[in-house]
Amino acid sequence: MIKVGIVGGTGYTGVELLRLLVLHPQVELTAVTSRAEAGTAVADLYPNLRGYLDLKFSEPTLDTLKQCDVVFFATPNGTAMLQAPELLAAGVRVIDLAADFRIKDLAVWEHWYDMKHACPDLVNEAVYGLPEVNRAEIAKARLVANPGCYPTAVQLGLLPLLEAGLIDPTRLIADAKSGVSGAGRKAAVGTLMGEAGESFKAYNVGGHRHLPEICQGLNLASDTPVNLTFVPHLLPMIRGIHATLYAPLSSDTDVESLQAVFQKRYADEAFVDVLPFGSHPETRSVRGGNMCQIALHKPQQGNMLVVLSVIDNLVKGAAGQAVQNMNIMFGLPENIGLQIVGLLP
Amino acid sequence: MIKVGIVGGTGYTGVELLRLLVLHPQVELTAVTSRAEAGTAVADLYPNLRGYLDLKFSEPTLDTLKQCDVVFFATPNGTAMLQAPELLAAGVRVIDLAADFRIKDLAVWEHWYDMKHACPDLVNEAVYGLPEVNRAEIAKARLVANPGCYPTAVQLGLLPLLEAGLIDPTRLIADAKSGVSGAGRKAAVGTLMGEAGESFKAYNVGGHRHLPEICQGLNLASDTPVNLTFVPHLLPMIRGIHATLYAPLSSDTDVESLQAVFQKRYADEAFVDVLPFGSHPETRSVRGGNMCQIALHKPQQGNMLVVLSVIDNLVKGAAGQAVQNMNIMFGLPENIGLQIVGLLP
Amino acid sequence: MIKVGIVGGTGYTGVELLRLLVLHPQVELTAVTSRAEAGTAVADLYPNLRGYLDLKFSEPTLDTLKQCDVVFFATPNGTAMLQAPELLAAGVRVIDLAADFRIKDLAVWEHWYDMKHACPDLVNEAVYGLPEVNRAEIAKARLVANPGCYPTAVQLGLLPLLEAGLIDPTRLIADAKSGVSGAGRKAAVGTLMGEAGESFKAYNVGGHRHLPEICQGLNLASDTPVNLTFVPHLLPMIRGIHATLYAPLSSDTDVESLQAVFQKRYADEAFVDVLPFGSHPETRSVRGGNMCQIALHKPQQGNMLVVLSVIDNLVKGAAGQAVQNMNIMFGLPENIGLQIVGLLP
Amino acid sequence: MIKVGIVGGTGYTGVELLRLLVLHPQVELTAVTSRAEAGTAVADLYPNLRGYLDLKFSEPTLDTLKQCDVVFFATPNGTAMLQAPELLAAGVRVIDLAADFRIKDLAVWEHWYDMKHACPDLVNEAVYGLPEVNRAEIAKARLVANPGCYPTAVQLGLLPLLEAGLIDPTRLIADAKSGVSGAGRKAAVGTLMGEAGESFKAYNVGGHRHLPEICQGLNLASDTPVNLTFVPHLLPMIRGIHATLYAPLSSDTDVESLQAVFQKRYADEAFVDVLPFGSHPETRSVRGGNMCQIALHKPQQGNMLVVLSVIDNLVKGAAGQAVQNMNIMFGLPENIGLQIVGLLP
Repeated sequence: MIKVGIVGGTGYTGVELLRLLVLHPQVELTAVTSRAEAGTAVADLYPNLRGYLDLKFSEPTLDTLKQCDVVFFATPNGTAMLQAPELLAAGVRVIDLAADFRIKDLAVWEHWYDMKHACPDLVNEAVYGLPEVNRAEIAKARLVANPGCYPTAVQLGLLPLLEAGLIDPTRLIADAKSGVSGAGRKAAVGTLMGEAGESFKAYNVGGHRHLPEICQGLNLASDTPVNLTFVPHLLPMIRGIHATLYAPLSSDTDVESLQAVFQKRYADEAFVDVLPFGSHPETRSVRGGNMCQIALHKPQQGNMLVVLSVIDNLVKGAAGQAVQNMNIMFGLPENIGLQIVGLLP
Repeated sequence: MIKVGIVGGTGYTGVELLRLLVLHPQVELTAVTSRAEAGTAVADLYPNLRGYLDLKFSEPTLDTLKQCDVVFFATPNGTAMLQAPELLAAGVRVIDLAADFRIKDLAVWEHWYDMKHACPDLVNEAVYGLPEVNRAEIAKARLVANPGCYPTAVQLGLLPLLEAGLIDPTRLIADAKSGVSGAGRKAAVGTLMGEAGESFKAYNVGGHRHLPEICQGLNLASDTPVNLTFVPHLLPMIRGIHATLYAPLSSDTDVESLQAVFQKRYADEAFVDVLPFGSHPETRSVRGGNMCQIALHKPQQGNMLVVLSVIDNLVKGAAGQAVQNMNIMFGLPENIGLQIVGLLP
Repeated sequence: MIKVGIVGGTGYTGVELLRLLVLHPQVELTAVTSRAEAGTAVADLYPNLRGYLDLKFSEPTLDTLKQCDVVFFATPNGTAMLQAPELLAAGVRVIDLAADFRIKDLAVWEHWYDMKHACPDLVNEAVYGLPEVNRAEIAKARLVANPGCYPTAVQLGLLPLLEAGLIDPTRLIADAKSGVSGAGRKAAVGTLMGEAGESFKAYNVGGHRHLPEICQGLNLASDTPVNLTFVPHLLPMIRGIHATLYAPLSSDTDVESLQAVFQKRYADEAFVDVLPFGSHPETRSVRGGNMCQIALHKPQQGNMLVVLSVIDNLVKGAAGQAVQNMNIMFGLPENIGLQIVGLLP
Repeated sequence: MIKVGIVGGTGYTGVELLRLLVLHPQVELTAVTSRAEAGTAVADLYPNLRGYLDLKFSEPTLDTLKQCDVVFFATPNGTAMLQAPELLAAGVRVIDLAADFRIKDLAVWEHWYDMKHACPDLVNEAVYGLPEVNRAEIAKARLVANPGCYPTAVQLGLLPLLEAGLIDPTRLIADAKSGVSGAGRKAAVGTLMGEAGESFKAYNVGGHRHLPEICQGLNLASDTPVNLTFVPHLLPMIRGIHATLYAPLSSDTDVESLQAVFQKRYADEAFVDVLPFGSHPETRSVRGGNMCQIALHKPQQGNMLVVLSVIDNLVKGAAGQAVQNMNIMFGLPENIGLQIVGLLP
């Protein structure tokens, strides 16, 4: 049994980790920390866990966490970098669901996250936890930077095309839409139901923190530097990301070849599902599950390829991918604890 | 492995059965029938099942269904009664998720469902599938009438009080609210998102088919005939039932005793969870799971007891309870295939 | 033109007042105050007002407000009572949309609102602004206490029955459901879309501040003291209240007589609409408008009368009723500025 | 008073026309037809109209309609073209909210709408009812083709750029999102709340009927033929369209100049509101109103201009624009009956 600790268990990625881990046959939950809720039974805050979890929130002390084999940080940006060094030194593996270790270029990170990094050398060591790209490195990693939600959906949709050199990397567009749970469980006016319900808007069009993360990943697969216009939007629903990706084909490639590229690229992936050409994936089909569903379109037989990519932002976009990474790090079957059929309707 | 057939697999209770059964370790799905979709891959209609189910919808012929150990009817009212006799004769057990076998009084049934019953003798034999009441009979049953969604939530909330003789059965009120999935997946104006979204209303206040079913169950637990006012409402959401039950105490009973009655009554039940006195259960805590969560209130310390009871109408109110019944009928652990944490948020 | 000031214009009742008043032909908006947003253009915070309002939020100073003919307080409880005395002394009329002046019994008010009242003598003078009860007093009032949202829906549904002595006032139940906008526009976890969306729950079943307000109003119409069980619930939608009221008939009264009592009681009311017996009013029918729609039911021809009453909590339950009161206070046609068809769908 | 008839008053554009017209000071509603509901009071089907409209639905006979000054067709595609010729011959003006007269190229129309056109000569005469482009022609028109919802939002967002020659017309993208009311009020599985709620998807990516309509309009403003990739999506909400438009600048144009082009283009338009550069318009700001709000972005100071354009699909995208056209046709102030503040929240 893997002894697991969760730092910051009161947010949405925290409770989602708990939903997955209490049923994981190889996991023993050792500590769930929360400074604000220390002493409260976890199931009092999250009654969906009643009967599945008997733990109380504990103070986030290193002594407790050092008893774990792996610690997940489901904390705001800037927290994991303060505690990771000591945990790693104590032999504990770390999976950070926040952004502290995602971006290799420190200056870029410090610009977008507007803080000084606390352990620059670990940034280098950290493995970017997108299994479909870095599986071998993840298996050996002490420290995994779990990808952001938008970056997961966008990269899985564009990588096969860049790797195969089929598109013009300088004119890419990612029009992405996310449910409100992506903004977390903190009190804020903008995600009140009275504000975000029954309405739709773009946000951060001028620049979103996930843009450099996406570009870093795409650039690794592209000869030419990628130029991406990334526009995130807020959906009046709770879970789900839908990325609509526009990629100009660099030469005339037929539908069958395009589809074949994706099917081959993801043939052995448990959590990327390439739908038949021309399908319209729905976010609900992956609700609660760790799957990314992808479909291709070539409207009017023109040279603009449209890729549709959907995930549950809290699962494949956060907690589920983190568990997938844990499975890889501990040599378990990758899908253990993650065989979940999307909740439809 | 239990060979399972599902008749009418295209509706919401059908796809919900499939969500549960494709992961049930003791089940082998043998046939999923649909006259309209015969030949279509089930996962084409319900892409959440991709990778979990390879079957195609088949014609609802008895030959196919007779190869099963148990057949679930996830069909409109009036269908199961036409096929059940022959299946039972062939040694196949039957669980009807519709209303054909729920009401023992034929005249009452024929009045509310406005049709002639096709096999009155089976009505007598059928066991009403509320495990918390009829577990022993279910274990021996060939034919189980799976309870309605409202009746499940209301009965579980009121039965302990009636059994203990603590309330006046002649002045009960059940103010119940259901998500739109309770109306099924048929094209209808009333459950369009443009009609049912962002709005709230009562419906069938003059009389709802679940009223006689609820009263039948409550009367079995009450010396005095029950008089219940039942008002159903349509919630602008997809899943979940919340029953707010008003029961005048017949004598002054203190809070601790009331709570103890419920806790004792459901102590051994895997799927009824009595919350601390004064809690406010939320439908989302049981979303996707088979749990019924119940809480008691005694507002202003008066003599009106308020019981709050929540279920997922598609799970404990339909498909999950049907699987629970199957588990009992086949001597399996009652919670196998049903260990599901509510999807929150 | 009536010079109007609004104190606390950044909340939902504030912006709703603005929506109504910018189109009111007899109103000139003089000041909209907000300590936090002073200097910001109102239409920058609320872009729906662009082109209709050129004002900036100003500091809530008495000097500014004294130039008005009437000041609306769309503030948290406890604010109006601090400023009302000086404004009244300066000849400004005051309409408080919060609870400061609603309850005549000071001890009751101080118990439920957990603060000391700042001007007890004004409580006495204040007129409870339910036009259907107090029209004549409102017309002469300097200070109007605008009713709460639940109290409006519940009182309008029960008053005709109590006035006519048709029901047993000691066994009343109000099962009420409100959209999330009733909780206001303040940052809070409980009304995040991730918490309140796609879920349903009761809250404050043990006791809600609107209970004493409702009882005060009902008692004025009843010989016998009223005993009411009031259970509020939170709907996964933005606007609308639906009250389901249960009232035992004190003697056998036929359907026609019951309906006649309501139709006669509200025959001259512009904003109470009695639907045909047996109707199911929907909150959306009154969305954005000042109407209360009411329907009666007598399920199973029993002695329990069910009254359904719907309003838009931000209009007839707050800002619209406040404008209605202003119209009455200034001798204008009662429906001026309030002729709004419900936004359906 | 203008005598107005509405053909097909039972759908969402029909009830929306009614919401606007019952309060229009220059309109007298003469006939609202519906074959299915003939004889029913309109306000029985749409209780939001109670007290505002006393009409019954009538049979759609030409005799009735010929008494009107103008007839709105709020019917499925293919209906108006059957009745328009005779009405026009009788001197009645016609505004078609469906697509019968929108596309000048008959072959294109017949391809996308998959039917034979009944009166090709009228197609030529019909004026495309986008007031911001065709105001003068509309004023003189007998027959107006009211634009589609997507085409309104997209054209208003792109036309100023094409007219000024600032963008490359061969690489345009319109990523558009619509609430479910755009699909109308007909019974259909796809727009059930259980299907369209809490989920998001693209649809008709391979080709949508609004594409040729959009291109026709854009081409009139462009020297070079427009090449547009148009991807519509279904939002889990009722009202609102948000178009996210991607337009490569043909040369480096600074932010101030871009903003100035839009502000100048729409300076005299009552219903197009250009927000400050970098704003994020929300669909709720225009809910229920006839406004189109537009904002510009230049992410990362690159050469890809992003235009955000929001409307209420049932108002500026349908019924409101139709009333605006009627006002122009009858020489009334363009905003009469349309001064409506968006319903926010």
